[in-house]
Amino acid sequence: MDTFTPTPISKVKRHPERGSYDRAAVYAILDAGLSCHVGYALGDQPLVTPTIHWREGDRLYWHGSAASRMLETLASGVKACVTVSLIDGLVLARSAFTHSMNYRSAMVFGTARRVEGRAAKLAALEHLIERLYPGRWAQLRPPTEQEIKATSVLSMPIEEVSAKARSGPPLDHDKDMGERVWAGVIPLTLAPGAPIADPKLDPAIALPDAFARYTPPR
Amino acid sequence: MDTFTPTPISKVKRHPERGSYDRAAVYAILDAGLSCHVGYALGDQPLVTPTIHWREGDRLYWHGSAASRMLETLASGVKACVTVSLIDGLVLARSAFTHSMNYRSAMVFGTARRVEGRAAKLAALEHLIERLYPGRWAQLRPPTEQEIKATSVLSMPIEEVSAKARSGPPLDHDKDMGERVWAGVIPLTLAPGAPIADPKLDPAIALPDAFARYTPPR
Repeated sequence: MDTFTPTPISKVKRHPERGSYDRAAVYAILDAGLSCHVGYALGDQPLVTPTIHWREGDRLYWHGSAASRMLETLASGVKACVTVSLIDGLVLARSAFTHSMNYRSAMVFGTARRVEGRAAKLAALEHLIERLYPGRWAQLRPPTEQEIKATSVLSMPIEEVSAKARSGPPLDHDKDMGERVWAGVIPLTLAPGAPIADPKLDPAIALPDAFARYTPPR
Repeated sequence: MDTFTPTPISKVKRHPERGSYDRAAVYAILDAGLSCHVGYALGDQPLVTPTIHWREGDRLYWHGSAASRMLETLASGVKACVTVSLIDGLVLARSAFTHSMNYRSAMVFGTARRVEGRAAKLAALEHLIERLYPGRWAQLRPPTEQEIKATSVLSMPIEEVSAKARSGPPLDHDKDMGERVWAGVIPLTLAPGAPIADPKLDPAIALPDAFARYTPPR
């Protein structure tokens, strides 16, 4: 299946022309985001918690303390909505109401479950580290049993999902094309700065090339 | 009042040392974010919608089409959680489990209401444009009655709120300080690229200095 089926909840209603149910498009946005916003409700009170996520095949993952309210609530089977959004630029148009932003976003609806078992949990966390820093997991000491126990990993199937994106120049009305204001796009990107060594780092440990020229998912 | 009172829902439970209820700290994060994630529920289904927000005094604002499901649902009085989060860096530590991210986030809980009346709506939208592009509102043609009618603006009091932030180097355990891996922070910033003029722009209209050296809220 290369396309997700829109449901009443996942169907893009505003600006449907910006919507997509294409698996590759959805995965690309999920993989480009460094963090997600996990939505769930405690009774009638919604909560939106930002956290790091990652994807393995057709499942979305996130993690936290085993004692986290967010993880505990979600593992109990309440419905979730996990949204990943990326800002790509500011769109300056010829009228106030046609100003916009360029962005990519994906919303995944479903129910999460805890990743059970030491090996499965470790494999998931290895994925998280390797997604951001390929090769690093093998350079780190093995996790302790206490660290593994103190961490919960949740995963959710990527099934009920939609993507939405805007790109390109402003879309002004014909009647406004004579307005004498600058119109265009200011691109925005999550850019890495020069790495800052831990003040406690042994100066004999050199900055790896991969970090000197690091590019974050974006 | 310079400090918000934590409530059972707004109190920071995980890493309470990262939490803050200071009004200035919360406002700084809300103002630094270009977009927020609005959480609400349709029945038992949570939704998390990314959108542009802005702040005026002690109220948070966002807007959209008058026909938007998100705005319509929220204006009916259901509870909301609006979260603004900013990623400041990747924290590379000496063990997998001490890896982290530097971030700033604020969660605002409450109930939104529609901004009623032509003048109040226009004033709010002027704030949105001026927040991003000081001086631009006056350069744009006045909005039409149809544009004003087709747009809904919501606002929510900033009362039940918390901020959470992490900054600085990795915090490794003493027993790990001898690990022979690089440790430190890779800073991340939302950086502007060179502005791209609308291909339809009259070449006689020059790029304003303010856009050539634009710095987004961040």
